[in-house]
Amino acid sequence: MNQSAPIGVFDSGIGGLTVVREILGHMPSEGVVYLGDTARVPYGIRSPETIKRYAREGIRFLLAEGIKFLVIACNTVSAVGLDDISSDIDVPVVGVLEPGAKAAAESTENGKVGVIGTAATIKSRSYIRAIRAFRGDVEVEARACPLFVPLVEEGWLDGEVPELAASKYLGGLKSKGIDTLVLGCTHYPLLKPVISRVMGPEVKLIDSAAETAREVSSQLAARGLESAGGKTPLRKFYVTDSPEGFTAVGERFLGAAIENIKKVQLEVIR
Amino acid sequence: MNQSAPIGVFDSGIGGLTVVREILGHMPSEGVVYLGDTARVPYGIRSPETIKRYAREGIRFLLAEGIKFLVIACNTVSAVGLDDISSDIDVPVVGVLEPGAKAAAESTENGKVGVIGTAATIKSRSYIRAIRAFRGDVEVEARACPLFVPLVEEGWLDGEVPELAASKYLGGLKSKGIDTLVLGCTHYPLLKPVISRVMGPEVKLIDSAAETAREVSSQLAARGLESAGGKTPLRKFYVTDSPEGFTAVGERFLGAAIENIKKVQLEVIR
Repeated sequence: MNQSAPIGVFDSGIGGLTVVREILGHMPSEGVVYLGDTARVPYGIRSPETIKRYAREGIRFLLAEGIKFLVIACNTVSAVGLDDISSDIDVPVVGVLEPGAKAAAESTENGKVGVIGTAATIKSRSYIRAIRAFRGDVEVEARACPLFVPLVEEGWLDGEVPELAASKYLGGLKSKGIDTLVLGCTHYPLLKPVISRVMGPEVKLIDSAAETAREVSSQLAARGLESAGGKTPLRKFYVTDSPEGFTAVGERFLGAAIENIKKVQLEVIR
Repeated sequence: MNQSAPIGVFDSGIGGLTVVREILGHMPSEGVVYLGDTARVPYGIRSPETIKRYAREGIRFLLAEGIKFLVIACNTVSAVGLDDISSDIDVPVVGVLEPGAKAAAESTENGKVGVIGTAATIKSRSYIRAIRAFRGDVEVEARACPLFVPLVEEGWLDGEVPELAASKYLGGLKSKGIDTLVLGCTHYPLLKPVISRVMGPEVKLIDSAAETAREVSSQLAARGLESAGGKTPLRKFYVTDSPEGFTAVGERFLGAAIENIKKVQLEVIR
């Protein structure tokens, strides 16, 4: 495997850029090729079968770009079918679910953890299984929050509407006395202030982007795949719908300029 | 053209069933084949180019079903490219935009009309052009309401969250003194009580589903394409993602049972 090859990052849309941000923060000399399937986003409202097909189509594209390592930066894909999808891939694969689940299992003191995510993520029960795999005695309460993604996309990150929506979604979790809440969707960290206000300061929020970047870093090291540095590392962004719109919002997620961006049409798997 | 052939109805998802409901109410002996592109819904957040490609793929499928008439029951598709899409189709085509625009131009007394819809619909300015084509002196104020579709899909049709969202979106339209508001998205009629409460009883709401059904009826008559009746008319529903979920919500939109439903994968146009 070529150490100078880039890391591939796949997401259903724009949210995975928060993971790229953490990767670049931890490993600035690594190259990154990002694919956001913006022509078919959001995935969280679709069936597992369709989500897995879309993910396979995106991953095939990234593999053809010559990546050395694959990050599935989408909680929905990580939750419904990482095992199915990654079984026949010849580069190491990391999703965002395991690192977040591990952090939650390590963080909780009272053994009560909450998880929020898209409808597909919560329905899969993957977070519950993953957290319990790290620590069997943890009680996990899960809740889908379908309006959070549209709220973030609309830029309504603060104010009465997100606050009321958060109260409706999170009231039940709060009353269970959880001390740790996994933000199981890459959009949700942008609602952190609102979520934190509703849950109270005693509840720790787990953002899987940072946890995932740490996992990527340690796996690259363990496999001897770290970039040796030297020339300017690759930054390449692909989207399946028009880059217009993506760039402006994407730069807010990434915390940096998006320059090398291109629209592609994915090959369909029948 | 075969009078006993069904009417084809295309939509990005589930909302077009409100149009089917009106068609079946007005013309119960007509057969209907519906296609909802649920694997790629929503269209209103995408670029015109992608919306037109998706619509072409869906329409090609419906034409192969042997339809005699095509209804584009999606405001976004009707707004961004009905002319482009329908130019090479050999059956008559009706969208939901013209009938709603005509009804608004006829309804307004003070010459001030509001239009609400998805981001793509409003950005296209098609409603403004269409209303002015019917009556040149009408002032049209348009506003995108991106959260309305997710609110309806989530089933939050009443209560504080939709009420506050409606106040945020509609405040500007209200202050312009409009007397007519076009609900330029097939999801919006389900929010009618909330929208009406925010706008006040003096503002007339135009729901294009009923107007479109009237237009279909009069065009079928004018072209001698009306069904002669007799045998039980066809009711067939196709979706591109799992029918599970679609059926339950769809029956609320349709006001009737959905029985003959099947998942299909559309041929991609490159």
